[in-house]
Amino acid sequence: MARAVTLAESTRPEDREQIDQILDEIVARKPASSIRVGISGAPGAGKSTLIESLGRHLLDLGHRVAVLAVDPSSGRSGGSILGDKTRMPTLSTSTEAFVRPSPAGRSLGGVARATGAGVLLCEAAGFDVILVETVGVGQSETAVSDITDLFLLLIAPAAGDDLQGIKRGVMELADLIAVTKHDGDLKTIAETTASAYAGALSLLRPKHGGYQVQTHMVSGLDGSGITELWEQIRSTHERMASSGLLDSIRAAQNETAFWAELMANVQDAHIEAAANDRSLGELVELVSRGSRHPRSAAREFWDRTH
Amino acid sequence: MARAVTLAESTRPEDREQIDQILDEIVARKPASSIRVGISGAPGAGKSTLIESLGRHLLDLGHRVAVLAVDPSSGRSGGSILGDKTRMPTLSTSTEAFVRPSPAGRSLGGVARATGAGVLLCEAAGFDVILVETVGVGQSETAVSDITDLFLLLIAPAAGDDLQGIKRGVMELADLIAVTKHDGDLKTIAETTASAYAGALSLLRPKHGGYQVQTHMVSGLDGSGITELWEQIRSTHERMASSGLLDSIRAAQNETAFWAELMANVQDAHIEAAANDRSLGELVELVSRGSRHPRSAAREFWDRTH
Repeated sequence: MARAVTLAESTRPEDREQIDQILDEIVARKPASSIRVGISGAPGAGKSTLIESLGRHLLDLGHRVAVLAVDPSSGRSGGSILGDKTRMPTLSTSTEAFVRPSPAGRSLGGVARATGAGVLLCEAAGFDVILVETVGVGQSETAVSDITDLFLLLIAPAAGDDLQGIKRGVMELADLIAVTKHDGDLKTIAETTASAYAGALSLLRPKHGGYQVQTHMVSGLDGSGITELWEQIRSTHERMASSGLLDSIRAAQNETAFWAELMANVQDAHIEAAANDRSLGELVELVSRGSRHPRSAAREFWDRTH
Repeated sequence: MARAVTLAESTRPEDREQIDQILDEIVARKPASSIRVGISGAPGAGKSTLIESLGRHLLDLGHRVAVLAVDPSSGRSGGSILGDKTRMPTLSTSTEAFVRPSPAGRSLGGVARATGAGVLLCEAAGFDVILVETVGVGQSETAVSDITDLFLLLIAPAAGDDLQGIKRGVMELADLIAVTKHDGDLKTIAETTASAYAGALSLLRPKHGGYQVQTHMVSGLDGSGITELWEQIRSTHERMASSGLLDSIRAAQNETAFWAELMANVQDAHIEAAANDRSLGELVELVSRGSRHPRSAAREFWDRTH
């Protein structure tokens, strides 16, 4: 498993060919599908604790759980949030769970494409729940929602003026919201936070017709709310599957991934070409500064390289 | 002007070459820049009335105003919202204003790229305020925000349960919100609506650091709030310009546009190739159904066409 995922993360041409073949065999075999859940939250929202707690619940229910990550900064910062596996002691040691840190370095697109392949590999290996977490830097939530069925947003309790934690754009993606740390001293604040977000969400149209975003309260510490949260995820997923929504979401994701791969090929080829004549970098620089118009610059580069 | 914009909308190779040359000359000359404002709102939010009212105010202040549109459905429905110029009597007849319906047909990307070129053409012709409206179908707001400096979201007054009009994702883009129809019988409801959205917005991080989204109330009918709304747009734009934020936004937009143009070239080339062997359509179909993995499919197509 881990070796296959490493292949998917590789940029070496011979690795690419090998993993492409494996992926094609997998999709041809149509392995049992999984429930793919994206999970995001600001630093301190309690992602690791929630994932460990939810994962333990899933193992108890007999599921096999894979935890993947999309963290484009992991290459630079020297370790993703999942690098420290001690934060998820049960999941890290269970034979029924697979925990994999984010692929290192490269662009967000590259990281997301590798993780997307990782989802398929995990399914082929028999994992029936895949959790894909992201640290929520920049556009990484969008990348995660492009490879998952449902998106769970975690929010830490906060009072009054501190209630500004949620990133714009993430609101758009969330299928469920869970306010964490609903325990001990933070219990009341968690409840206030949950009702504030529930109110704000009521001003937004559902992401998919008929699927109003629900706000949950959970505690990774004492496990309260975890059963209800999973039940909500499971039943929503079931409804999505039976209504045909899941199929259409995944079909659209596949098509998006195809164009992203094609674009990656284009960029790779152009970057390779540019490595020789440096003209692409100069052109992008001119375009960025507004000295060349994007249209003619793109046309010029295209004509020269084709 | 209108002829140049028509050239920019054309897909004929000889028109493309001509307009590309014009656009390159324009960016080389660096004409006076404009305030570029994206405007969106659900049907019935009062876009035309607001644009006419705001435009009249701008003409009074001595500005020259261009109104462009991004409406990917205009080709199909047979006429964009701006097709009916009678909705903007002053702007449609003033020599200091230029009103242009959305380019017809094609993809959203194609429409947006043509309108992006239109923005530059209008600036070169001396228009110093460019309003780009969109009907708000699907991803068109994102496309508009990729070619404008600021994004104004219009919301119609609504009470209680009807307060669900705002599209997710649009929240992410808005720099300003204006609740329309703040007049007559709707005045109180407009105020309730404005305060509900102001509350919801306080839960979101600012789009750019330090620029909290303001909620205004306006009436296109009696003109109340229009002066304040414009003053807010103008002063925000000024701060963006002096802080360097505007330059970095436009640089990023230029770079995005470059890759979009390059991708459009790729797609055109591939669609052309596919028109002969039909393999692209089949491949996308297989990928979409999940019978082929996007990676190997993209690689196969790329290898065959290069």
